[in-house]
Amino acid sequence: MMTGAQYKASLKDGRRVYFRGERVTDVVTHPTFAHQVEAAAAGYDRDYRSGADAVSSYMKAPRSIDELRDQATASVDLLTSISTTSTMTLLTAADRIQKRRPQGSEAIRDYVRELQRKDLRIVECITDAKGDRSLPPAKQPDPDAYLRVVERRSDGVVIRGAKLHIAVAPIAHELMVIPTKAMKPDERDYAIACGVALDTPGVKVINVGSTPAGLDLRDYPFTHDEFISHGFVIFDDVFVPNERVFLDGETEHAATFAHSLGLWIRAQGLAGMADEADMRAGFAQLIAEANGLDKVVHIKEKIAEMVIHATLLRSTLEASLARAQNLSDGTVIPDELYTNVGKYLGAAELPLMNRHLLDIAGGSALTAPSTRDLENPETGQLLKKYMVGKAGLGGDYRLKLFHAIRDLTASTTGSYKNLATLLGGGGLYAQRVVTRGRYDMERAKRLALRAAGLADQPV
Amino acid sequence: MMTGAQYKASLKDGRRVYFRGERVTDVVTHPTFAHQVEAAAAGYDRDYRSGADAVSSYMKAPRSIDELRDQATASVDLLTSISTTSTMTLLTAADRIQKRRPQGSEAIRDYVRELQRKDLRIVECITDAKGDRSLPPAKQPDPDAYLRVVERRSDGVVIRGAKLHIAVAPIAHELMVIPTKAMKPDERDYAIACGVALDTPGVKVINVGSTPAGLDLRDYPFTHDEFISHGFVIFDDVFVPNERVFLDGETEHAATFAHSLGLWIRAQGLAGMADEADMRAGFAQLIAEANGLDKVVHIKEKIAEMVIHATLLRSTLEASLARAQNLSDGTVIPDELYTNVGKYLGAAELPLMNRHLLDIAGGSALTAPSTRDLENPETGQLLKKYMVGKAGLGGDYRLKLFHAIRDLTASTTGSYKNLATLLGGGGLYAQRVVTRGRYDMERAKRLALRAAGLADQPV
Amino acid sequence: MMTGAQYKASLKDGRRVYFRGERVTDVVTHPTFAHQVEAAAAGYDRDYRSGADAVSSYMKAPRSIDELRDQATASVDLLTSISTTSTMTLLTAADRIQKRRPQGSEAIRDYVRELQRKDLRIVECITDAKGDRSLPPAKQPDPDAYLRVVERRSDGVVIRGAKLHIAVAPIAHELMVIPTKAMKPDERDYAIACGVALDTPGVKVINVGSTPAGLDLRDYPFTHDEFISHGFVIFDDVFVPNERVFLDGETEHAATFAHSLGLWIRAQGLAGMADEADMRAGFAQLIAEANGLDKVVHIKEKIAEMVIHATLLRSTLEASLARAQNLSDGTVIPDELYTNVGKYLGAAELPLMNRHLLDIAGGSALTAPSTRDLENPETGQLLKKYMVGKAGLGGDYRLKLFHAIRDLTASTTGSYKNLATLLGGGGLYAQRVVTRGRYDMERAKRLALRAAGLADQPV
Amino acid sequence: MMTGAQYKASLKDGRRVYFRGERVTDVVTHPTFAHQVEAAAAGYDRDYRSGADAVSSYMKAPRSIDELRDQATASVDLLTSISTTSTMTLLTAADRIQKRRPQGSEAIRDYVRELQRKDLRIVECITDAKGDRSLPPAKQPDPDAYLRVVERRSDGVVIRGAKLHIAVAPIAHELMVIPTKAMKPDERDYAIACGVALDTPGVKVINVGSTPAGLDLRDYPFTHDEFISHGFVIFDDVFVPNERVFLDGETEHAATFAHSLGLWIRAQGLAGMADEADMRAGFAQLIAEANGLDKVVHIKEKIAEMVIHATLLRSTLEASLARAQNLSDGTVIPDELYTNVGKYLGAAELPLMNRHLLDIAGGSALTAPSTRDLENPETGQLLKKYMVGKAGLGGDYRLKLFHAIRDLTASTTGSYKNLATLLGGGGLYAQRVVTRGRYDMERAKRLALRAAGLADQPV
Repeated sequence: MMTGAQYKASLKDGRRVYFRGERVTDVVTHPTFAHQVEAAAAGYDRDYRSGADAVSSYMKAPRSIDELRDQATASVDLLTSISTTSTMTLLTAADRIQKRRPQGSEAIRDYVRELQRKDLRIVECITDAKGDRSLPPAKQPDPDAYLRVVERRSDGVVIRGAKLHIAVAPIAHELMVIPTKAMKPDERDYAIACGVALDTPGVKVINVGSTPAGLDLRDYPFTHDEFISHGFVIFDDVFVPNERVFLDGETEHAATFAHSLGLWIRAQGLAGMADEADMRAGFAQLIAEANGLDKVVHIKEKIAEMVIHATLLRSTLEASLARAQNLSDGTVIPDELYTNVGKYLGAAELPLMNRHLLDIAGGSALTAPSTRDLENPETGQLLKKYMVGKAGLGGDYRLKLFHAIRDLTASTTGSYKNLATLLGGGGLYAQRVVTRGRYDMERAKRLALRAAGLADQPV
Repeated sequence: MMTGAQYKASLKDGRRVYFRGERVTDVVTHPTFAHQVEAAAAGYDRDYRSGADAVSSYMKAPRSIDELRDQATASVDLLTSISTTSTMTLLTAADRIQKRRPQGSEAIRDYVRELQRKDLRIVECITDAKGDRSLPPAKQPDPDAYLRVVERRSDGVVIRGAKLHIAVAPIAHELMVIPTKAMKPDERDYAIACGVALDTPGVKVINVGSTPAGLDLRDYPFTHDEFISHGFVIFDDVFVPNERVFLDGETEHAATFAHSLGLWIRAQGLAGMADEADMRAGFAQLIAEANGLDKVVHIKEKIAEMVIHATLLRSTLEASLARAQNLSDGTVIPDELYTNVGKYLGAAELPLMNRHLLDIAGGSALTAPSTRDLENPETGQLLKKYMVGKAGLGGDYRLKLFHAIRDLTASTTGSYKNLATLLGGGGLYAQRVVTRGRYDMERAKRLALRAAGLADQPV
Repeated sequence: MMTGAQYKASLKDGRRVYFRGERVTDVVTHPTFAHQVEAAAAGYDRDYRSGADAVSSYMKAPRSIDELRDQATASVDLLTSISTTSTMTLLTAADRIQKRRPQGSEAIRDYVRELQRKDLRIVECITDAKGDRSLPPAKQPDPDAYLRVVERRSDGVVIRGAKLHIAVAPIAHELMVIPTKAMKPDERDYAIACGVALDTPGVKVINVGSTPAGLDLRDYPFTHDEFISHGFVIFDDVFVPNERVFLDGETEHAATFAHSLGLWIRAQGLAGMADEADMRAGFAQLIAEANGLDKVVHIKEKIAEMVIHATLLRSTLEASLARAQNLSDGTVIPDELYTNVGKYLGAAELPLMNRHLLDIAGGSALTAPSTRDLENPETGQLLKKYMVGKAGLGGDYRLKLFHAIRDLTASTTGSYKNLATLLGGGGLYAQRVVTRGRYDMERAKRLALRAAGLADQPV
Repeated sequence: MMTGAQYKASLKDGRRVYFRGERVTDVVTHPTFAHQVEAAAAGYDRDYRSGADAVSSYMKAPRSIDELRDQATASVDLLTSISTTSTMTLLTAADRIQKRRPQGSEAIRDYVRELQRKDLRIVECITDAKGDRSLPPAKQPDPDAYLRVVERRSDGVVIRGAKLHIAVAPIAHELMVIPTKAMKPDERDYAIACGVALDTPGVKVINVGSTPAGLDLRDYPFTHDEFISHGFVIFDDVFVPNERVFLDGETEHAATFAHSLGLWIRAQGLAGMADEADMRAGFAQLIAEANGLDKVVHIKEKIAEMVIHATLLRSTLEASLARAQNLSDGTVIPDELYTNVGKYLGAAELPLMNRHLLDIAGGSALTAPSTRDLENPETGQLLKKYMVGKAGLGGDYRLKLFHAIRDLTASTTGSYKNLATLLGGGGLYAQRVVTRGRYDMERAKRLALRAAGLADQPV
């Protein structure tokens, strides 16, 4: 396994990362990425065990509901979390494509062993540029709108295309490239899944999003810890050797990887969403108390709605674990219907929950002055005096709550987090489609037919 | 145990039941009650086992999560279901008042053994008339607005008051009379819980609701099976002997019975709500198919919302069982937070779910002609011809779906069912209060404080 | 003009009306229809003026915003209201088809003059049986799923089909038969609009819905005044003479009548919806006061939501009148976008408004005993005693409020009214389609382009 | 009147403005304020007319519905808009306090004439620090939690306290200081309203919010034009001469100014909200088209919901103008009920509308690269290639749409705008209270009583 220092050193490999129109020569020291690198390095150090056989517990498949719960609720840095998701996705897909493309399954398992042995981090690359979305890949004016194989050689393939919305791409080692959706028989070149190292020639990562310059991060606790940038990853004729090609042309399995990813991304995400909903309720209660408004009925009503939401979200997590299933290789996976509905609920209601929190906090969530103004002798004492709410809680305590609430709901970071919740794993419509697909509609119809006195009808 | 016939005979005991201004001399044959009596009698027959020691499984406390699940998901007639709820309520309360009023606990246990031995059915009587609800019991212009003890004798007490919304009261044997809410120290006379037989002098049941005369019940499948009437039960100076008095004056325990009832009423209700939500989704799918509209996107979207709702509801049931707790006597009870949130969700969203179902079904849910019109030679063939939707499904099949949907959502019965879902166990506000009370807000606040950089603050 | 008595006499014309499997020989005296006939007769008497030239003001087109407002807000019986809608629809369509089928326009105007002169009532017949709704009319297994011309003669046409959901059909004189939607060029036989008298051979009206027998109508104020039944009208090879044929085969105008109807049906309906929303808010306030709960914050919050809803609804009415437009013949019509959005809002939110009202009223909305129980000497005084809420308001006053709320929200009548609101003029999806169609999206796009710095782009 | 250059010069008056812990010596050139100053200066130049008697049209009261509409829908810079609101507030209050404090009315009118003559800009200062909000002003541990008079002299008063959330305070000339709410008789010192110049000794403005450093404003069109900072304004023992004191101790009129402000702030805001709702619908349509998704039903449904929302909002504006009222001095004011309901709707639904817009746009609203990346020769052509959506619309066009949508919904600026919409003029609860207060509940109750057969009851 690697230490944090070794991880940092490993990032100096010539990767082509861009930010605001310029090449980033060193992600480890660049102001936009340094923070994320540090968080990932700390994760390495925390998880580190010596020994040649040591394997990170976040890179292994759970074998019981308890292990599944532990992995799902572990508090890790984002890069590690995405690596877990990607690795589980690969292992699940290996199981599913075994029959149709055994050499692909073998390649995956070798690749995962390599990741484990070298203790590498890997991020998923799924969403294509897509061009005109009313047209399928093979009908696009620009055939590269979906990533595809442009050349097949004896020793590998050359791929071209772009993958979007790739979180923490510039600080990972590997890219798991998989098709974004099902493909038709005439779309063979688009049925490509493979592993690509970040420093492979032709790979360019254009990055978006950064902690805004000039902010005093003491006033932005989430920005401090959780800000993430997203990569627009371009594969400009990238060669992939055969041993890293997992799928190539088997269109009937184009969606297998996406489905596996969907399952694991939700398993990873749901526990975090539930905790965050609790935290949001906690903020609402704390600021109501600090404002002296916690006994006011309409405030209590809004907090009750937040509590109900958080509890519903947690009940989907509990149900997804209580109804977990086994893959053929013994891996335990959460129930897809419940995780999917949980994801839907969390995303759909987030705007309302934020509205409640802000409505309870009031305008100072927006206009609370900065810590530097507290420190300024000309204004500090006056600010402390006027920021006092309920007696006994200092003005600076209340200020910190306002800062955190702003950063959670209304800063660039908060907005990014919210948007990632809304759109991560597909928008609301995608969740509805999956829900319909997983729901036992036959049973529901039988219940209805029986009630209507039509029990003898076929469903 | 009793057979159905014995049960019917047992109802001829001189009870004072009223309906539409007249005394009902025999509930067994009265058109309003006969149906409900038959359903209850069938329940007796189904459950019957011979032997002096035989006890109905619906009158015993669950000892494991599996037993709890079985009891909660059993499909029984309403009278049996309410008897289970009431009996569990009593046993739970016996545990809780043991220390303060040991003779009350003993009285309850004796009483329950009597119910078990004689195989009697018992309904809960909780909601008082309440008078001016801005005033507490002791401040009401009419002191009888809440049921109270008006006289204490050496051998028992005399009670006066009214209890409202008592489902299937006229066909039960016993009334479990309990305080509707917490009482203050000066409201001792209102802290009364006891068991009262239906035929006790002074008990009058004024009944509301009946299957409308003139309806062809073939067109109303829910009305046929599920119609319930509600009793307005008056206790006009009713004597209760000491051995049936469970609480008398211990105001600190006035709410203990109501809380116990709340727990069990939700445990009983949640599985049924989840099934009904599934059934509603099933009806939506069936009628969409019969109309030829099941591939239409906006219809699929509405069905997806119904499916998501049903799944969320079921996840609260799963969570309430996965997180079940033990009483000191070994009785297993469902988690209150999850059951309560499930009840809230089911009640709050029911109007929208019905709106979706009707919006999908279309106007014929309202205007589909009757089975008799189908049988009329002047109109029958024409109706069948014009009621055909998707080819292969007969016009009469579609008619039956419309009839069932109307009866579920828009008939008197449907409206009663909906209203009972909305208001049963208290309105939405009551559910919110309970949710806030059961939620682990301390943990939520800790999560928020930690995130705000205030981990050292007390919650 | 006709008096009420003349109107009643005019209904004895041999019309074929069916109810619950039997032919209705006289609608004037039949228990299901007598009430509606009386209401319509009272309308005739109220409106009556002598003189050969007298024309009902409800059968004339408005020429100013004030006349439009008067007509839209007039409080008339349902038959008159539908007659106004149908007549305005015909006159509007006459204007629109003038160029393509001048003889149709002329036929319409002659027909309307006949209606005015004879003071007849006319109802719209638009919705077809529709069969498998995934298929267009011409592709249906049964070609009669949409009403069509099955024979053309020199003196007229023969039509066959069914029209559904026709309110008060059995007590009108005339049927305005119009296509339910746009038709394709190969669907000429379905592009038929005409006027048909109720007593024409081949017309059969199968009726659904009746005030339930056995109800004491004193307890059901809405059922008493507003119950309506709906006709399933079958045209079993009905001959229509040329002078009553308004459209025949001009498929490009098939939707013209439906669009005209949509406009007027909403103009008629919106003011009533707004008043009903106000009334619902009034009931919520009255019952909260009678319960002694009107100062409770969560109750006030729910009432505020009802008030906001009612005010939004009224603002669409105000906007539709403030932005009224002129037809070429000087008829003033309300703005379609605002009326349509008003209809959508009223329908979509009705279930929630009813939920609020019931949640505020509490369980007695369901279980309040009957007036007959009040009159029964054995129970009357006790009921009055226990139904008292806030001091000074008698128990019988509160009982009447509960009865009215039940009848508005949860009786068969209430359910019918709600469903008619939801589905009348098409379900929610139809409203959305119309809204999109009428909205000035070009302007909205220009606003967005300008804001994005793309003002030079074409919209 | 002043030109833009004169306006800029007028800001160099020694005002004490702070930002991020430092004194701002010149707001005209400071990076945080320069943009806002330029916008205000441009407003001066656009409005400028020469002549000693020239008065800005934004500083005069409307005398007709048309003038009211013009003022409400004028597109002006924020400082001008707030000046209009403040001036109208003062004139309205002058009318209302005339009888109780005639010298206050006179002082206001003189003050407004001074503002008009010197062409000054004025912002409202209403929200106090409030301390523990469960306590009234006179019971606060710190009596300065609400701004108050701490000393009365023969020539004026000395005030102390803080006013929060004061938009564009640092670039205005005058502060309109008014009580935040009604006061009790023992809170005389808090019933103070007056005019204070920005450069008065003791006035300190601590400012929050700035366009984030490092952003390329080409990618942030709203940030470019609309970013606003908010002032925390401290009155640290500020002397106010008698001629600028409008109210002092007349507690019965403490709320008069707040109510007047509420009326005008909504009149000013509603038209802007309606236009912004339209713009949001426009963005949704444009990005759906650019993505090639505008024919997809679930996208069309979401856009329809946005269109319905925008139309409802506009209908409240139309109704507020159609039902405008006259003050005694001839000033025309919009209907308060409709404006208030419009504000409520706009604020309550904004989170959902943003969710729809983002759900339609997809993840690139978050992750679209920057204009600088487009300009970078290493990445520009690749980005343009992969950002192309529907053929014919360039990749840079789509990029600009994504940038604008991000800035509208998810940037710091967007978040500030959203929060200002939600909380401006009080949170949702405040709107509900006002709505209940303005609604004609007596009429609603009469409608209900009549329907219930209780027309003879008093409302």
